[in-house]
Amino acid sequence: MPKVLVPLAEGFEELEAVALIDVMRRGGIDVLVRSLKAELDITGANGIVVKAENTIYDVRSDEIDMIVLPGGWGGTDHLAEDENVQRLLKEMDAEGKQIGAICAAPFALNAAGVLKENFTCYPSVEEQIRTEGYQGDRQQVVTDGNVMTSRGPGTAICFALQIIKKLVGEESYAQVREGVLATYCD
Amino acid sequence: MPKVLVPLAEGFEELEAVALIDVMRRGGIDVLVRSLKAELDITGANGIVVKAENTIYDVRSDEIDMIVLPGGWGGTDHLAEDENVQRLLKEMDAEGKQIGAICAAPFALNAAGVLKENFTCYPSVEEQIRTEGYQGDRQQVVTDGNVMTSRGPGTAICFALQIIKKLVGEESYAQVREGVLATYCD
Repeated sequence: MPKVLVPLAEGFEELEAVALIDVMRRGGIDVLVRSLKAELDITGANGIVVKAENTIYDVRSDEIDMIVLPGGWGGTDHLAEDENVQRLLKEMDAEGKQIGAICAAPFALNAAGVLKENFTCYPSVEEQIRTEGYQGDRQQVVTDGNVMTSRGPGTAICFALQIIKKLVGEESYAQVREGVLATYCD
Repeated sequence: MPKVLVPLAEGFEELEAVALIDVMRRGGIDVLVRSLKAELDITGANGIVVKAENTIYDVRSDEIDMIVLPGGWGGTDHLAEDENVQRLLKEMDAEGKQIGAICAAPFALNAAGVLKENFTCYPSVEEQIRTEGYQGDRQQVVTDGNVMTSRGPGTAICFALQIIKKLVGEESYAQVREGVLATYCD
């Protein structure tokens, strides 16, 4: 069972985080929901409190297959500054492992120097990253090498489905896409 | 500011609940996230724990404009059996106030006797309700009188947007639809 780390930071975008965790689990992925700090009750951008299962402190890059960052500007700033997240991103990239981010969070990938040439993000966030290579809404999910990026709350399910396709396979992707009624996803 | 109650019960579908709360708040709705029991940490169908803000015990139908039920079979069974939820549904219906449910949760509306002739729900759940009046996938959201129903995780954002259109107005609906990048919603 592939293992994916989803770090939660204060101010995370709740719908993106929960869509990613929920849909990836439906697809047969073991999702680790981890807090950046000792406090496990994390308040999102819209005041929804999600409980992390543990802290990120003991997560090692050699035991996970992917790290995926939910968006929200508050959460993204924390992800861009957190030493554990930044270290894991660099280690995962050096090992050629999968990395993902949605909405504002590609900013945190850029901070770690792991964002590839082609990417997407929430509209206008590219101004804080770079306009070169920004793919806008041409695709719900942009894949460049080992890095997958997506746009925002409305593409979070589609993003999770593409991660299932990559880590688990076509069959699980098709089953879950049908199961969650997300026929609008590519 | 319209006030909407979202009751959370063990086994609720996390993506549906969080999409509803998140998107409705973006649209200017005051969302009350309430537990059926004294315990406020509620575990969903996919193991995600969301913290309710308070219990449902003190919520009165005369102070809310709508009640919306997230799905998930485990959660739906609790909603169908909970006396506070069932009482509120009957009171809201008697007062002609808005009622909503998604996925399996129209079953809990039916238990209260408030489901109207035309409805939709998660595919095959209609067999536990009735096939007559079931609209399937003809629409993402079915409105009949004061009762709105929707289909599953992939239609939860669209459902929340239709609630915003009903309770707040066209302008907020259009802004939030654009803001969350849910251009696939009707």
